Order: sequence, then structure tokens, then C-alpha cells
Amino acid sequence: MTSPLKTLDVVGIGNAIVDVLVQADDNFLADHALSKGSMALVDEQQADRLYASAGPGLETSGGSAANTLAGIAQLGGRAGFIGRVRNDQLGAIFAHDIRAVGARFETPAAVSGPSTARCLILVTPDAQRTMCTYLGASVGLDPADLDLELVRQAKVLYLEGYLWDSEEAKRAFIAAAEVMRDSGGQVALSLSDAFCVDRHRQSFQELVDGHVDVVFANEAEICSLYQSESFEAAADQVRGRCRVAALTRSELGSVVLSGSESFRIPPYRLGELVDTTGAGDLYAAGFLFGYTRGDDLVRCGQLGSLCAGQVVTQLGPRPQASLPDLVANHLG
Amino acid sequence: MTSPLKTLDVVGIGNAIVDVLVQADDNFLADHALSKGSMALVDEQQADRLYASAGPGLETSGGSAANTLAGIAQLGGRAGFIGRVRNDQLGAIFAHDIRAVGARFETPAAVSGPSTARCLILVTPDAQRTMCTYLGASVGLDPADLDLELVRQAKVLYLEGYLWDSEEAKRAFIAAAEVMRDSGGQVALSLSDAFCVDRHRQSFQELVDGHVDVVFANEAEICSLYQSESFEAAADQVRGRCRVAALTRSELGSVVLSGSESFRIPPYRLGELVDTTGAGDLYAAGFLFGYTRGDDLVRCGQLGSLCAGQVVTQLGPRPQASLPDLVANHLG
Repeated sequence: MTSPLKTLDVVGIGNAIVDVLVQADDNFLADHALSKGSMALVDEQQADRLYASAGPGLETSGGSAANTLAGIAQLGGRAGFIGRVRNDQLGAIFAHDIRAVGARFETPAAVSGPSTARCLILVTPDAQRTMCTYLGASVGLDPADLDLELVRQAKVLYLEGYLWDSEEAKRAFIAAAEVMRDSGGQVALSLSDAFCVDRHRQSFQELVDGHVDVVFANEAEICSLYQSESFEAAADQVRGRCRVAALTRSELGSVVLSGSESFRIPPYRLGELVDTTGAGDLYAAGFLFGYTRGDDLVRCGQLGSLCAGQVVTQLGPRPQASLPDLVANHLG
Repeated sequence: MTSPLKTLDVVGIGNAIVDVLVQADDNFLADHALSKGSMALVDEQQADRLYASAGPGLETSGGSAANTLAGIAQLGGRAGFIGRVRNDQLGAIFAHDIRAVGARFETPAAVSGPSTARCLILVTPDAQRTMCTYLGASVGLDPADLDLELVRQAKVLYLEGYLWDSEEAKRAFIAAAEVMRDSGGQVALSLSDAFCVDRHRQSFQELVDGHVDVVFANEAEICSLYQSESFEAAADQVRGRCRVAALTRSELGSVVLSGSESFRIPPYRLGELVDTTGAGDLYAAGFLFGYTRGDDLVRCGQLGSLCAGQVVTQLGPRPQASLPDLVANHLG
């Protein structure tokens, strides 16, 4: 995984989103027919209606792949992000935040069309998050927005499954993946959400078989991908189809599969569970940070587990604590 | 303090601001010549330059009086807020958040001119906050924006000293205070910031002597108002000049003065000190909630102390925990 020509560790493509974190109870989810723990797409009118009925919010940059790349940058990795905002106040916040942690972000902001994407994240007292996303300007990401030079510079291209909900973004990803292959890098994919896997199962199966080196999924997502009844059955299905599968299981930790090997990684409990938003994103951040430095898969999994363990002790998906300090304290 | 004709407990006038909370160290403050713990006014260009050099942020509705009124509403008080945003994304966030806790907010958003006010709040590891405010649209609040009917409906009109930094807002306040007097209500004032008191000392002294029933100040502010060397000397100065003076002293708790009486209120330590943003605002919220219900001054002070004690255990000036639960658990 070392390549002297690569000046970046990971470049990610994803939806550029600002999160609005709101405390809610189970009744609110029921009243609005929201499925706890999932991500639902909403149009602008639905987004406005939901927001109007929700409690006061806390705004923070989000977006699944963007959270991962911000985490990699915070860890000291060389990270770049490609995604589309509008030239509005939320877009400026998104661009500031990802650059402020040291990631490269140069996708031009749209000067017309829908506003910057917003995700209303309802955090219930059990610390679960339920997301309603208005994709706004992020949907407009197309191959013309892709900085292929940035992609070529990276060791790993990282993609979020959510991109499959937009035809333009999907095409942009496939173009980038081909460039990545040609430049000798690897491709990593997060399956993002079980409902998202439901919507794009066949497409994801083909990807994992043919185009992806590293796949990230939680238990519900990997089970959905292979329509398996158990985690073990799903893990057996994915084994050998790609170079590495890193499967997260919440409080059970994670399992990393590679060839015939399996590594069980315990979870880190670093404090009271506050909000699971960003747990998967930060697992991928820690994992890929280690992976692109050439760490063994156990340490990659530990790095992922540690970063995920931190982010669930706070509100929001971008770690407020120092990740390098955390690594120094727990993994030396 | 009971008046059957009053349908609101407190109406506040203040700058309508969205906060951008950023972690920073003492070097950052020194590099930008910022005085720790203070509020400095910046123009849009300075605000943009500071923001660009700062770390990633967390956005939340703020504004001193707005935080107080939001707290009163969260406690179950009947609250209204008057302040000016622009019709932009941050303005929509501000309006949503204050309405979402049940406060009335009906000031029309400006449709042209500067954008919604932003305050960059630098939180240092010692939990102190240092603020740089771009007043933007909030400066444009003038008497025409004042809903005097809303003011007449309230038992108490609450004002932040920061308003004195804008000529229009100052005129709006004085007009509202006169209306309040005529309708049989009381006027409360927060001195806001020691530098703000420096800028407007004579004006504030005249107000406290002639127009204000309840004054809120921290130790630095009350010492600045009377150019006193000690807290005790300043407290002797303010005693008797207005109906009630509620003076906060951080970890020493607060002192409530009324006529010849003094009440010492201990602080509440409810967890690790994270961020002092909003401590004074939430003290005023708890105090005025009790005051407008006719509670005795000791309980008013305890309510203030409790709300302040909560908000300093979290990032940002709007309590994420339930204030009614807090009151039920600690004050019965």
C-alpha cells in the first residue's frame, strides 16, 4: 500500500451535507412515519415541514464520506473530498469545516439551483439517530465536477453508497473508480444504510464482486446485501469477493475479513453513549488511516473501533476531541 | 408581580445571532489580539478572516437576550423575543430554534442589507469563551421593528446591554422601556460585557438609576460600571439604585441585592465544566422565570444558578438537557 507517487492517502466522494441535530422521542418518529436508525430521502417541502415540527437544532457539517475524510485528516492522514454544495451560508460552513481539519476540498460550489444539502438528524434518548436528508445541491455532482487529478493522487478512493441515490453522482463515482484503478490505487465503499442497499442491491453486489477492494458495512447492511438471515451467513457470502471486508456490529465491535482470515476487534467504550451519528463514518476513518499507512488489519480495525468509540460519546458526527491524542493514549 | 392583563411573562429585545462555536487555544487568542472572556465587535471582513483561520465549528442559535428568552420558554415561562435577522439560512435557523422552544418571535426578517448576525465563539481548554461578533442584520433593528403590543403584554421587558452598540437598537429599547412603564410592567437589563460597560458607562449608570427595575451583571461588569476596585464596593454602589440587582460571580455563585437585603446563592456543579457560553444568559432565564411567577428572591437566584450550572456542562448557550426536569430534581 505504499506508492511514492501518491501525495494523498484517501480521496472521498460523497454528498456534501450540513446536519441539523435535533433531540426527539419515539413518538416524533412514529408521528412522521420514520424508521429508527435509517436514512430517508425527503424533498425540500418535506424537509421544511419536518424541520418546522422539530425541536431546536445544532448545526454541524456532516455527510457520510465527508465525515470519514475529515476524520482521516484529523488523524494526520492526507485527505481530499469531492462533493457539491451551493454558494450559500450552509455551503460556506461545509467548506470551512472540512478545510479547517486539513482536508483538500476544491469542488466548485454551484451558483444556481437547489441549496446546500441538509440532513435532519433526530437523536432519540437511546442515542440512536434517524436521518431525513434533503440532497439539494449535492445531487448535481456530475463527472464534470470530478477532479480526476485529485483522485489519481490518492492511494484509496472512498465512496459512500448513498451516492447511488443520484444518477449523476453514480456516474461520477464509476468514472473516478476507473481512474483509480488505472493509477494503481484501491477503491473502498461504504454500504451506508440498509434501505439504501435495498434500493440498489444488484448494483452493490456487482460492485463488491468486481470493483471494490475494501467494503465497509454494518450488520444490517451486509445482511441486506446478501438477503441473509444471520450475520455469519452474510459474512460467509462477502468473504473472498473483495480484498477486505470490515463489518461493524455496534456494541459487539467489528469483524475484519481478508481471504480466509477473520479478525474480531472489540469495541472501545470511552464514555456514556450520547449519539450514534457518524459511528460508521469514523470507523472507516480510523481503518483507512491505518490501512494507507500500511498497518496490519487488526490495528486498522482497532483504529476504526477507537474513532467510532469516541464519536458516539458526543452529539454530532465530527469528533470534537483530538483523535491523535486518543490514538496515542489507547494504541500507543 | 401578578397582573391578570399580562399574557406573557418576559419579552426580550436583543441581537438575533447565530453562534459558531470553535475550539481554540490561548495562542489563537494571542495571535488575533483577542481578550479572553470578552466580546469584541468585528466587521464582515474581519469576521470572515477570523473564521477562515479558525478550526471546524458547531453552529447554534445564540444572542444573549435570545438565549435568556429561549431558556424562559424552555422552563415553561411565556416568552417573546424581538430581534432582527436577514431572510437567509442562518436567519431561518435562528427563527426556528427560538420558536421551537415555544417563544414568540415575530420580528420580520430583513429582505435586503447585511446577513444574519454571526458570533464566532472561541472556546479554550479552560472552558472560557471569547466572542467576536459581526452584528450584520441585527444592527438594523429600529423602532419600526418593535412590536409594542408584544411588549405591553409582558410583565417584564428584558434587554441586553449589547444593544447599546447600535444607535437604532438603543432607540428601540428606550421606546420599548417607556411603553413597558406605561403598561405597569418592569424593566430588566443585563450589562452583558465589561468592555461594553466601558463603552457606555454613563448611559448605563443613568439607566440603572432611573429606568431599570432588575439589573443583571457579573463581577467584572458591575466593577466596571462603578469603576470599583472590589466586588463589595461595586455591590454597595448598586444597592438601592434599582429594585433588584442579581450579581453573578462564577464559581462563587451569585448575590442578590434588594433594598437593604442581600442573599448569597451557592453555585450548582452539575458536571465537568465544558464551555461557559450562555452562563449569564441562563442565570437571567432562571431568575426571571421565578421572578415573574412571584417566587422569593432566594428561589429566583437558585433557579438562575441551576440553569447556569447546567449550560456550562455542554458546548453552546442553549440547554440541550430538559430544564424543567432539572428544576424538579434539584428544587422540587
